[in-house]
Amino acid sequence: MVNRDTGKKKISESTIRRLSLYYRALSLLEKENYETISSRELAKREKLTPAQVRKDLSFFGSFGTRGLGYPVSELKDRIAKILGINRIWNVAMIGVGNIGSALVSYKEFQKQGFAIKLIFDNDQRKIGSNHKGLIVSDIKEMPHLLLEHNIEMVVLAVPAIVAQYIVDEVVQAGIKAILNFAPINLKVPDDVFVRNENMSMELEYLSFAISNNYTPN
Amino acid sequence: MVNRDTGKKKISESTIRRLSLYYRALSLLEKENYETISSRELAKREKLTPAQVRKDLSFFGSFGTRGLGYPVSELKDRIAKILGINRIWNVAMIGVGNIGSALVSYKEFQKQGFAIKLIFDNDQRKIGSNHKGLIVSDIKEMPHLLLEHNIEMVVLAVPAIVAQYIVDEVVQAGIKAILNFAPINLKVPDDVFVRNENMSMELEYLSFAISNNYTPN
Repeated sequence: MVNRDTGKKKISESTIRRLSLYYRALSLLEKENYETISSRELAKREKLTPAQVRKDLSFFGSFGTRGLGYPVSELKDRIAKILGINRIWNVAMIGVGNIGSALVSYKEFQKQGFAIKLIFDNDQRKIGSNHKGLIVSDIKEMPHLLLEHNIEMVVLAVPAIVAQYIVDEVVQAGIKAILNFAPINLKVPDDVFVRNENMSMELEYLSFAISNNYTPN
Repeated sequence: MVNRDTGKKKISESTIRRLSLYYRALSLLEKENYETISSRELAKREKLTPAQVRKDLSFFGSFGTRGLGYPVSELKDRIAKILGINRIWNVAMIGVGNIGSALVSYKEFQKQGFAIKLIFDNDQRKIGSNHKGLIVSDIKEMPHLLLEHNIEMVVLAVPAIVAQYIVDEVVQAGIKAILNFAPINLKVPDDVFVRNENMSMELEYLSFAISNNYTPN
């Protein structure tokens, strides 16, 4: 599909997701000292069709040579650049309940360049305590601390009831990207990106799939 | 889209996701003592178009009366039935590291009828310990315990390196639904459903969105 305003090809959410998968596959291939990989082989590793892989990668200009395949390191670096993970992002964790404190220790974040720099909570017993080398700050200090530490993304792991209030402050502080674990639809301005994570909805998908003998596509 | 083989309308993944959202909205409306709701109002709450709401719900037969809107409790119950959450599902948690132990305490699971009945780990220091009233079992006991406790879904929160080995045993025990937190593409038979959760990929989506000034659709 082509965007009428920009003339640019439209990238779907599932393409972006597959780019993340290709990136992981290529990182592994690089460690295994592969120099090139065919679309067929990359497809096989990700359980996709070679046509899908070629189509996804064609969005971003020409890669690889017919017959030789894609150069592993170059392709990996270009995908990193496309995904914007060829740099470190400063992230704040808001809420250190069960999910929040698990995510502070989540190695995949650090590995992909998402560096948790600040953590916040409103619980007096948690404020000042140490989580993986970071001291929990009082959420009252959040507005100015987000600015002072150049935070660019926040992970929101707070109860639904306070989530919108906190997000309003986060938006006020100029944050444009929010990963939300609170089970609520947040209202944000158009230029702020929100991804909602709800593990229960994933189980509901499975429940639907089993109950209806569902086959996607 | 109509499936040529079955003549049934094809339900997209995003429709299923929206059903979960409608279910939550209707649960809240029920608590607020609403008896009916219009597609317009439901759409507004979920930041969708009324046409989208009507289209989603039309997949499942006729609901509501023109001008009066949908009956809240009836619609909620019908969506619960469609999603297969009008019952309790027996779930096992495999791995009680950071993510696994956070999920054992995740209230949304219980609330939606996903009851964690067993938890497993291979760490001798964890086996026998108590997590929210459940005793951690040795993963060696998993194959027969899954059967004995009629487990129907598992949540996999183990390191990538052991995930496939464990999934093979899980599949062997007849489990058809797996929520996977390990950063790996699992190989399973066609009749086993897997949902992959990777919080880092969600941040990569945000990173892509900010870096490319992305607007979906």
